[in-house]
Amino acid sequence: MFITFEGIEGSGKTTQAKLLHEWLIDNGYEVILTREPGGTPAAEEIRKFILSDREEPFPEIAELMLYMAARSFHVQNLIKPALNSGTIVISDRFSDATLAYQGYGRGLSLKDISHLNSLATEGLKPDITFLIDVPVEIGMLRIEGREHDRIEKETLIFHEKVRKGYLQIASENPERIVVIDGTKRTEEIFEEIRKNIERRLKNGI
Amino acid sequence: MFITFEGIEGSGKTTQAKLLHEWLIDNGYEVILTREPGGTPAAEEIRKFILSDREEPFPEIAELMLYMAARSFHVQNLIKPALNSGTIVISDRFSDATLAYQGYGRGLSLKDISHLNSLATEGLKPDITFLIDVPVEIGMLRIEGREHDRIEKETLIFHEKVRKGYLQIASENPERIVVIDGTKRTEEIFEEIRKNIERRLKNGI
Repeated sequence: MFITFEGIEGSGKTTQAKLLHEWLIDNGYEVILTREPGGTPAAEEIRKFILSDREEPFPEIAELMLYMAARSFHVQNLIKPALNSGTIVISDRFSDATLAYQGYGRGLSLKDISHLNSLATEGLKPDITFLIDVPVEIGMLRIEGREHDRIEKETLIFHEKVRKGYLQIASENPERIVVIDGTKRTEEIFEEIRKNIERRLKNGI
Repeated sequence: MFITFEGIEGSGKTTQAKLLHEWLIDNGYEVILTREPGGTPAAEEIRKFILSDREEPFPEIAELMLYMAARSFHVQNLIKPALNSGTIVISDRFSDATLAYQGYGRGLSLKDISHLNSLATEGLKPDITFLIDVPVEIGMLRIEGREHDRIEKETLIFHEKVRKGYLQIASENPERIVVIDGTKRTEEIFEEIRKNIERRLKNGI
């Protein structure tokens, strides 16, 4: 089973991914928790490249290509081998994030991104995606204390576009994407996720 | 004027690019010599990433995306600004190389590569491309002394496909690509290139 978590900065998706990971381990499942961009040594190198500030302007197309390169390493060298060996894979972000950030956020072609996603993932899609949705102001407030990376430093307007993009993607993929109100308490959100996964594990999907 | 040099490993293209660069400087032209992958600090970082050996398998799609990312930095941050200021740009390899190596060599979709090239270059094409053509055995013999990078270590069959790919691309772009017999002496080859460029400079293109 391939489970992904999506959401804007400060949505709480990383916390929820960790809680689910622990819960699955505690219940005796083989499971790995990974993230994008990243997940393998090469992909983590690309992550560092993408997220660090640099003097040189960063073309949007270069950013898109680098996310895709990292995804290709991640899928071929970590996710697919794990799934093939029967391990549950949880990823903090995956293909939807590129549609939301580079597509809806930056305005790059959604058609191009979808095609590149299918190349980079070799057609792999999550079985289930939890989109933890919060208003941008709440997300930004939550990450206020942290040091911000290049993407987190983007404007409120950018993050608003990303949030709307995510909701649009969810509305187009209702069979795969579960939208969760991220303003609820952490435990309440996790209950919803746990019940969903428990039901699927019982039904064998 | 945007001039590119293409050819397989050991073709002599880098030598010719340098000779042309010097000749243009000696004749009072503003000119820069650059290379792919590379040409800007970010693109050179990506070059190092692409060409170095690593434990982790290197997916072909990841390789393709990284070449495109480097090209995007190169075009946006070096080539276009230089051309806009009236400087002649000579690049040791450009878009054709990705068609030849990742397309004809690795077998990735030529249509996909062409589309990605147009995104990464924002539609920029060389005014003239010199394809220095040599048989693979000669090229390989010439680079025998050097330490080889990840691409140079590929099989003879791979380099044979790349050479044929380059010739195919040349046959489809006769107005832009000049094929030069790279088995001739260095000075003889350079004479051919110099005459061609001199004629273009006189005619204002």
